[in-house]
Amino acid sequence: MATLEIRGATLLTMVEGADPVEDGLIAARDGRIVYAGPAGGHHGEAQPDETLEARGCVALPGLVNAHTHCAMTLLRGFADDMQLKPWLEEMIWPTEARLTAEDVYWGAMLGSVEMLRAGVTCFSDMYHFAEAGTRAAVEAGIRVCPSGVLLGFLDTADEMLERALEFTARLAAEGHPRVHPMLGPHAPYTCPDRLLRRVADGAAAQGIPIHIHLAETRQEVDESLAAHGETPVAHLERIGLLETPVNAAHCVWLTDRDIEILAERHVGVVHCPGSNMKLASGVCPVPKLLGRGVVVGLGTDGAASNNNLDLLEEARLAALVHKLHDLDPTVVDAGRALALATRGAAEALGLGDVVGTLEPGKRADIAVIDLTAPHLAPGHHLVSDLIYSARASDVVHTVVEGAVVVRNREVVGLDEGEVLRQARARGRRLAEG
Amino acid sequence: MATLEIRGATLLTMVEGADPVEDGLIAARDGRIVYAGPAGGHHGEAQPDETLEARGCVALPGLVNAHTHCAMTLLRGFADDMQLKPWLEEMIWPTEARLTAEDVYWGAMLGSVEMLRAGVTCFSDMYHFAEAGTRAAVEAGIRVCPSGVLLGFLDTADEMLERALEFTARLAAEGHPRVHPMLGPHAPYTCPDRLLRRVADGAAAQGIPIHIHLAETRQEVDESLAAHGETPVAHLERIGLLETPVNAAHCVWLTDRDIEILAERHVGVVHCPGSNMKLASGVCPVPKLLGRGVVVGLGTDGAASNNNLDLLEEARLAALVHKLHDLDPTVVDAGRALALATRGAAEALGLGDVVGTLEPGKRADIAVIDLTAPHLAPGHHLVSDLIYSARASDVVHTVVEGAVVVRNREVVGLDEGEVLRQARARGRRLAEG
Repeated sequence: MATLEIRGATLLTMVEGADPVEDGLIAARDGRIVYAGPAGGHHGEAQPDETLEARGCVALPGLVNAHTHCAMTLLRGFADDMQLKPWLEEMIWPTEARLTAEDVYWGAMLGSVEMLRAGVTCFSDMYHFAEAGTRAAVEAGIRVCPSGVLLGFLDTADEMLERALEFTARLAAEGHPRVHPMLGPHAPYTCPDRLLRRVADGAAAQGIPIHIHLAETRQEVDESLAAHGETPVAHLERIGLLETPVNAAHCVWLTDRDIEILAERHVGVVHCPGSNMKLASGVCPVPKLLGRGVVVGLGTDGAASNNNLDLLEEARLAALVHKLHDLDPTVVDAGRALALATRGAAEALGLGDVVGTLEPGKRADIAVIDLTAPHLAPGHHLVSDLIYSARASDVVHTVVEGAVVVRNREVVGLDEGEVLRQARARGRRLAEG
Repeated sequence: MATLEIRGATLLTMVEGADPVEDGLIAARDGRIVYAGPAGGHHGEAQPDETLEARGCVALPGLVNAHTHCAMTLLRGFADDMQLKPWLEEMIWPTEARLTAEDVYWGAMLGSVEMLRAGVTCFSDMYHFAEAGTRAAVEAGIRVCPSGVLLGFLDTADEMLERALEFTARLAAEGHPRVHPMLGPHAPYTCPDRLLRRVADGAAAQGIPIHIHLAETRQEVDESLAAHGETPVAHLERIGLLETPVNAAHCVWLTDRDIEILAERHVGVVHCPGSNMKLASGVCPVPKLLGRGVVVGLGTDGAASNNNLDLLEEARLAALVHKLHDLDPTVVDAGRALALATRGAAEALGLGDVVGTLEPGKRADIAVIDLTAPHLAPGHHLVSDLIYSARASDVVHTVVEGAVVVRNREVVGLDEGEVLRQARARGRRLAEG
């Protein structure tokens, strides 16, 4: 019975409508929250195994990065400021073709370390060599939703799907409390209908969600209209893919009818503002989606198109970009932006009962952020300060499944120097070709 | 003869077209750079007074924040996510009316500390009680361009201008090497032509630049067209304000003719993407301005509309927002964004011969940024990593006028705890009214 207490922080439980709790206490036992509230409201353990003193800090649910390609950290800064087509075809894909499973392990380890330091406790990872990436996340101590990636245009697509289904079945059998498998068909335009239908059947049979890119670029929509006479969203609905739980990254180019479909089918939309800006894709209509009741979360996308995995920055970008896009400074306010990065992202991944708020019964995934730096003074408004002023470097402690994985800004229990050495050597080898 | 050396860093001199210099050496004497190049190219001092070891780091010109209202740090997070009019009229202005000179001193001290920690070595400060704000900057060790603020609709506007001219004359006479006075008429829509003409005459007589808000909102342009039959830029040109050096903040809503005027009159445009997004003002057409040869720099605007003074983040926003706005991922590339934050901002302020690059003869204003954190690995491209991945917290040393003002991430020579206590107490008093 491992027990943990976090004492003295202001709590932002991120339960809808809840006020911050000053001088709060969080108690966790065996990976789950047993109490999150005022210090006086709980007697706690007689002798908790570990206590984090967190005065001057805020404790909130660990941030959830609902769409990334974790090992692409190895390609961070490798190719930027390019048109999408040459960027993908001349730089990213030929380099990815040289990736080994061990590269993915170390790239995912680097990304996991970066995210844990930034208060991100869970990520959804669509990438090659999913077994290696998952192993890295498990060892790093972070929560992961691995989905692999199915590229339907490859001759081996059917075989890839078989292997993916074996992998997810094995993960389900192992039942690791921090691993939540999914299936990852890359996108409607890279996967033929026949494959997508088999994915939907496999996901339904195993009771796992589907993670897919959707309506990311105008070109994708134009090509879908030309090929199928319908938008990518309408197409996925027609072929039955939206009958199982789906989380869909990007969703930039949507018709009103698409938005209705996303709402009706309870699709979790993953907004990636940094990547959509950097690749000049456009703006996901988040205020409109939220207005129609669509579940929306946040993701960083991969480090090749962001170029970091800093979800607090992503929340700031979300708050800023919609104000500009709608020419309305009231949309996506600070509280909403923080909800997108926590509760919203958890719900988008189908993990709304598991993480995303600080509530008894949920897994103890917690970020503790120091509020005493000059750029956070004088401290008029906690949530505004977090969204508009705080930095990943203000994260002091990160807890996943009740275990302290970052303590006093240092990653616990792994050799960060070795992670950096491996990442640099492998990044160099990949770049040199 | 105070001497300083910085050893081992990769140098980004930000001289146009210059490549990074590995294992570089910067030598400074009496506040000026005497050498910036390969370690082997200079014998240095026999015994420099101070040496900063900077292996694993990049050294670049200190960042220049070309438009802020520094003491508004006291209002950080006080009012956000509101429409501009009630934000200003119900929240900001009534609160500012309660400001004292001592509030401005401590607010400017807080902002100076925040900026120095973020590698910002120079800021242009349009704010009330300019004497107090300037005193704080001088004591904090940062470079400042104080301009006060002239609100032409007040009865006391003429008297304010007299006092401002006395202040700038006194500063000129004192000749502090880190103080560069300016005149700060708030905006064309808040200052009548008669006052603006007197400002232009005063600036010309003293040989100092003018710092003004210009074409920030569509409403400003519409009202100018209604009142004068011309845009704010055309109006300023017609009344003669652009005959002296001017740096103009925002410049969001511009006609092609406005852009020609800005180019012809060598107006320094200060782009504030964070504020323009947060207040939903719009997007300054930076690629177009640069294409026509307009000098463009970066500013954060005040902490009430940003909400931090982190110029590296502002450079990232600049790189991202134009890609989205133009739907072109090649515009404002990482190198350009970094130039906006250094050389461009210095030139926009008329300080292009003083700071903005690492060159012999220029003042020794230098930021040293650590590149060894996980979010900067594997290190494919230095400038991309700085713009798209680095954080203010990666700044390890900051040097202004040859003096080390931040060493190993700690501010040198002032009591940061006292600054925070004062800022919190004064922020609370202002909020409580």
